[in-house]
Amino acid sequence: MPAHRVTVLVGSLRRESLNRKMARALAGLVPDRLALDEVPIRDLPHYDADLDADPPAPWVAFRDRVRPADAVLFVTPEYNRSVPGVLKNAIDVGSRPYGKSVWSGKPGAVISVSPGAIGGFGANHHLRQSLVFLDVPVLQQPEAYVGGAAKLFDEQGRLASDATREFMTKFLNAFADWIALTGRR
Amino acid sequence: MPAHRVTVLVGSLRRESLNRKMARALAGLVPDRLALDEVPIRDLPHYDADLDADPPAPWVAFRDRVRPADAVLFVTPEYNRSVPGVLKNAIDVGSRPYGKSVWSGKPGAVISVSPGAIGGFGANHHLRQSLVFLDVPVLQQPEAYVGGAAKLFDEQGRLASDATREFMTKFLNAFADWIALTGRR
Amino acid sequence: MPAHRVTVLVGSLRRESLNRKMARALAGLVPDRLALDEVPIRDLPHYDADLDADPPAPWVAFRDRVRPADAVLFVTPEYNRSVPGVLKNAIDVGSRPYGKSVWSGKPGAVISVSPGAIGGFGANHHLRQSLVFLDVPVLQQPEAYVGGAAKLFDEQGRLASDATREFMTKFLNAFADWIALTGRR
Amino acid sequence: MPAHRVTVLVGSLRRESLNRKMARALAGLVPDRLALDEVPIRDLPHYDADLDADPPAPWVAFRDRVRPADAVLFVTPEYNRSVPGVLKNAIDVGSRPYGKSVWSGKPGAVISVSPGAIGGFGANHHLRQSLVFLDVPVLQQPEAYVGGAAKLFDEQGRLASDATREFMTKFLNAFADWIALTGRR
Repeated sequence: MPAHRVTVLVGSLRRESLNRKMARALAGLVPDRLALDEVPIRDLPHYDADLDADPPAPWVAFRDRVRPADAVLFVTPEYNRSVPGVLKNAIDVGSRPYGKSVWSGKPGAVISVSPGAIGGFGANHHLRQSLVFLDVPVLQQPEAYVGGAAKLFDEQGRLASDATREFMTKFLNAFADWIALTGRR
Repeated sequence: MPAHRVTVLVGSLRRESLNRKMARALAGLVPDRLALDEVPIRDLPHYDADLDADPPAPWVAFRDRVRPADAVLFVTPEYNRSVPGVLKNAIDVGSRPYGKSVWSGKPGAVISVSPGAIGGFGANHHLRQSLVFLDVPVLQQPEAYVGGAAKLFDEQGRLASDATREFMTKFLNAFADWIALTGRR
Repeated sequence: MPAHRVTVLVGSLRRESLNRKMARALAGLVPDRLALDEVPIRDLPHYDADLDADPPAPWVAFRDRVRPADAVLFVTPEYNRSVPGVLKNAIDVGSRPYGKSVWSGKPGAVISVSPGAIGGFGANHHLRQSLVFLDVPVLQQPEAYVGGAAKLFDEQGRLASDATREFMTKFLNAFADWIALTGRR
Repeated sequence: MPAHRVTVLVGSLRRESLNRKMARALAGLVPDRLALDEVPIRDLPHYDADLDADPPAPWVAFRDRVRPADAVLFVTPEYNRSVPGVLKNAIDVGSRPYGKSVWSGKPGAVISVSPGAIGGFGANHHLRQSLVFLDVPVLQQPEAYVGGAAKLFDEQGRLASDATREFMTKFLNAFADWIALTGRR
C-alpha cells in the first residue's frame, strides 16, 4: 500500500526558522506510511477575488500541487497571537474559488513551534477554527504546542533530545492513523 | 483641537469589496473629531524576519505612514472563519522589528462586514486576540458585526438605510470618545 | 446493527429554551442509526477537585450515564459570547478525575441556537476548543449556527419550515456518518 | 483619594488552588491605589433565566457586592482549554437580567495561572471574548500567563521569587493606571 502523501506547510519564511527545522526533523522521523511534501508558500500573491478569473501562475501551481495530496500538516509559529499572514494567505489561496477548495475533506494536523513558553497556542487554535470551515478533520490528540524551541535542535538541525523525538514520532503515528481512519481513499 | 488621525485598514483587495464600500461610506459619516486615512496593504511583501536588516521599500513606507497616526480602525471580511491573510500580513509587517511596532498604544476598533448572516464574527475576534499582544486598547461596545452587507449599499455605494447610517455614526462617535480617553496625546 | 447512542447536552436551563426545543425537534428527525439521550445538567454541583475523592452523587450519576454512550451532541445558546457556565461545568465534571474523562474518543457535534443573527458562533467555537483537549473528534461540516431561532418553531414546538427540517436532517445524517467513521466500536 | 475597589474572582474552588494562592499573594503586593475584594462564587446556583423574576438569594448578594466596585480582576485556571464552568457561571449571573449587568463599563484585567507551561492561555482569551460583549475594557499589556505555578509559592503561600513578585507588582500598577484612565468615576 502506498504511503499517504502529506502536504506540509511551514508558517515562517525565515531561513533559520525553528518551524522549518522542525519540518525537516520530522522528515527523519516519519513512518513509512507517510510521505511528506513541503510546499513553499513564499511566492503566492495575496489572495484577491478579482484575480480568480485569470489566476496568477503561483496560485495555480500551488493548488495543483496540494490538490492530489491525501492530507495536510501545518507547522507554524505564532505571530501576534495568531497565524502568520503568509500562512493564512496560502490557506485562503487554496480555498478559492468557491466550490474548488483544495483542502476539502483532507485530514489535517497542527504543530505550533515557538521560542517562548506558550508554544504557539494562539496560532494553533486560530488555525483549527479555519479548518472547521474548510472541512478538514483535524487530529485532536496529542496536541503539539512546542515551546522553548530554540534549545531543541543541535548544530546539524536535528532534534537533540530523545523525549522530543519520541513525542514527535508518536504524533506522526497518531496522524497516520487519523489519515487512515478519516481520509477519502 | 486637531482631529485624531485614524489609520484605516481594509481587509479585502477586491475592487467591489463590501468592506471597501463600508470604509468609504464611513468617510461620509465621520465626525469632525476624526480624520480617516485608508492605508493600502496590497503591495506589502510577506513578512520575513530575514529582511528586517534591509526592509523592502513598501514595508518602510507602510510603517512610516502608520506610525504618526493616533488610532487604527480595521474594516475586514472573514476569510475561512478568520482574518484574511493579506490583512494579517499588514499587521505582522507593522509589528516588526521587535520593539519597533507601529501599533503599540494606539487605540483601535474593529468592524467586520460580510454578505452572510454571521457578520464576520470569527475574523473580528481573531483580530482582537492579536490586538492584546500589540497593546492596542480596543473599543468594546458597540460591537460591529455587519451581516447581509450585499444589500446595504445603493448604486453609488452609499449606505442605503437610515438605521445602518445611524449605527455607524454611533460607532464612530464611540470610537472618537475611546481615542480621547485612551490615546497617548 | 443497533443505533449509535448519542448523549445530548442542552446548554440552557430555561423551560421555554430555544435550544431545548431544538433538541426535541431533532428527536423527531433523527435517523434510525442514532438514538438520542438528553442528559440533564441542572443538578451538577460546580466542579471542585477537593470533591474528587468522595464525589457528589449527581456527578457520579452523570458520568455513569454518559460513559457508555457512543457519541455526544451539544445544543447550546451563547451566553456572553461563549459557552454557558452551566454547560461548561457539565463538561468539566465529565472530564475528571484526571485520566477518567467520559468524553475521550467519543465523536462529537455542535449546534448553536440563538434568537440573534450570529447564531451562537462564539459559543460554538469555544466549545470546539475544549473538545480538542478532550479528544472528541468533531464534525466539521455542515456547521450549525442557527440564528433567528425565535421564529423557527410553531406552537407545538416543531420546526416550522421545510428548509430547517431538511438542514437538520442533513446535519444528523452527516453526524451518523461521522460516528460510524471515527467511533470506537 | 480613596483606593479603587477591585472585585477579584478566582476561577477555582479547590482549597489549595494555585489561583487562590496567587490572589492572596497579590493582596500583599497591591499598591495603595487599589483595594482588592475577593468575592466568592461557589454558592451561586447555575444561571437560569426562569429565575430572573424571583432570583435566588446568592445571586442577589453577588450582584449587590460586585455592583459598587470600580473594576474587576479575574484570576483563573484553565479547564479543558477554556474558562472553568464555575467562573463562567458567575459572569453569566452578574450579566443578567438584560440591561442590569453589573460588569458594564468596569475596567478589567485577567491573570491565568497553571501548573503547565502554557499558562492558561486558552482560558485567558476566552474570558477576553466575553468581556467584549460585557463592555469591560481590558488591560492589554502586560499579559499574565503564569505557567509552572506549582513551583512559584513557598510553604507560607508567598511568591518565592523576586522576578515573579516584580512582574506582579508591575501588572498591578499597570492595572491601577488602566482603571484611572478608563474607569467611570
